[in-house]
Amino acid sequence: MDLKNKRIGIIGSGIVNKEIYELAYKVGKLLAEKGAIIYTGGLGGVMEAASKGAFEAGGITVGILPGHKAEDANPYVKILVLTDMGHARNVILIRSVEMVVAIAGGYGTLSEIALALKMWKPVIGLKTWENIPGVHYVNSAEEVLSKILEFLS
Amino acid sequence: MDLKNKRIGIIGSGIVNKEIYELAYKVGKLLAEKGAIIYTGGLGGVMEAASKGAFEAGGITVGILPGHKAEDANPYVKILVLTDMGHARNVILIRSVEMVVAIAGGYGTLSEIALALKMWKPVIGLKTWENIPGVHYVNSAEEVLSKILEFLS
Amino acid sequence: MDLKNKRIGIIGSGIVNKEIYELAYKVGKLLAEKGAIIYTGGLGGVMEAASKGAFEAGGITVGILPGHKAEDANPYVKILVLTDMGHARNVILIRSVEMVVAIAGGYGTLSEIALALKMWKPVIGLKTWENIPGVHYVNSAEEVLSKILEFLS
Amino acid sequence: MDLKNKRIGIIGSGIVNKEIYELAYKVGKLLAEKGAIIYTGGLGGVMEAASKGAFEAGGITVGILPGHKAEDANPYVKILVLTDMGHARNVILIRSVEMVVAIAGGYGTLSEIALALKMWKPVIGLKTWENIPGVHYVNSAEEVLSKILEFLS
Repeated sequence: MDLKNKRIGIIGSGIVNKEIYELAYKVGKLLAEKGAIIYTGGLGGVMEAASKGAFEAGGITVGILPGHKAEDANPYVKILVLTDMGHARNVILIRSVEMVVAIAGGYGTLSEIALALKMWKPVIGLKTWENIPGVHYVNSAEEVLSKILEFLS
Repeated sequence: MDLKNKRIGIIGSGIVNKEIYELAYKVGKLLAEKGAIIYTGGLGGVMEAASKGAFEAGGITVGILPGHKAEDANPYVKILVLTDMGHARNVILIRSVEMVVAIAGGYGTLSEIALALKMWKPVIGLKTWENIPGVHYVNSAEEVLSKILEFLS
Repeated sequence: MDLKNKRIGIIGSGIVNKEIYELAYKVGKLLAEKGAIIYTGGLGGVMEAASKGAFEAGGITVGILPGHKAEDANPYVKILVLTDMGHARNVILIRSVEMVVAIAGGYGTLSEIALALKMWKPVIGLKTWENIPGVHYVNSAEEVLSKILEFLS
Repeated sequence: MDLKNKRIGIIGSGIVNKEIYELAYKVGKLLAEKGAIIYTGGLGGVMEAASKGAFEAGGITVGILPGHKAEDANPYVKILVLTDMGHARNVILIRSVEMVVAIAGGYGTLSEIALALKMWKPVIGLKTWENIPGVHYVNSAEEVLSKILEFLS
């Protein structure tokens, strides 16, 4: 079973420490290796790490940016969407994907988790906001993948 | 001291019980009596109750709706904004106001609380999502008003 | 017959000469005197002139701004909506109103005229883009008013 | 010289006759063969034809849809963006691309042409709205390609 053409959003902070960066990188890589298309907010931190992992696995990466400048995107975004809509791009990102992986993250990520749950999309949480009813919490990149495969089986 | 022309968002569930309805009504009324312009999502539940309270106090009520039909607005909305943007209207609502009062609420309200905090806007919480760092929790409509006056003093 | 609570959008350039300013002022004034709520993009030029005319007639003026700063609005906007969505605010403005008056205007105004026609909303044109099928062209502020009253009769 | 990774929007009516369909198909094909990423509104008519041409040339096709349902996209869209924002998706589409090709089209297309010109993006017109100052009019798919190469040289 693979994730061929599955649209998966990976969300999280724009500034992260090395541990979180590596975790997001690994999630992006594992999912892209299975064929998933990785959607992020296109900027730094978790967004960059996840895009980089997917990019290096030969996957497709989509960046849905808050601004209107292509050069704001991290270099691992292959498909750019420039919304010029600030935080409303969060809504477009969540609308566009079939499920969401939240890694770490601040208030912006919390808004996206809430929007995803509002739209009845599965949310997998990894070292992110705790105790939100409806979020499927896991502890590693590998568990993200198995949880997603479980959803699809 | 009054709230003349202060733009205050009142957010919360679209379906509520009598207790919450009356609470939201009272918050809308108290704030409008002081001159605040009340912004809501324009639909039912907390949105309707707060608009009704403000309306009956002679205040101005703005409804920022997710759809494109004027008739979807509750009857206490004086100024209609029809976004036709679904949940992205949450972002516009929060952007437009100076502070936010969250009453009860589900995932949509959680997304708005998070967006408000992301934008550094004061959020007052009343019987809503608990334990969110940054939210100022209070227990009554009267306390909402005194907390707002405290912010502005 | 009046325009009580009719939502009318007045669109046009952000920078205009004295003649167009006075024309937009007069349109705003005439429509507000009949009770219309005047919606504009909230900035300068035609938007400011129309808001000023409506404001001075004691009317309600709504400004739907592209940015997120309240201080960008002209001083005659009573109800602020801060979209932070750039040109997408044009779509919200047109969605929110029942008919549109276009006065002068450049490409931004052309996009709004086209959106209004796409949404089947009546568009009245005054010294604006010529020869657009579907636009009702008139030559004075007074004719704007009579054309609107004609639509509603 | 090629169009590697150039983001080009192809816009036009959702319902077209055979001649326009074949023209849009050819434009999509020619541009994708040169490496361009083709952005459309993701629905039928010109959007479908251009996507099909690009798809069959092995190119990448991005569809920025007005609604929230993946199944509304034509089958030649590889990368889906579901905005759920109605006509505001026009703004996102135009923002995201570096230049625009307009083929036939009604009011929606006119709004996109105007938005592109407002954002100072080159617009090439093919059997579309006439006499719009700023649009570069051409008469065939081949001329679209040579005009684009001319812009980039």
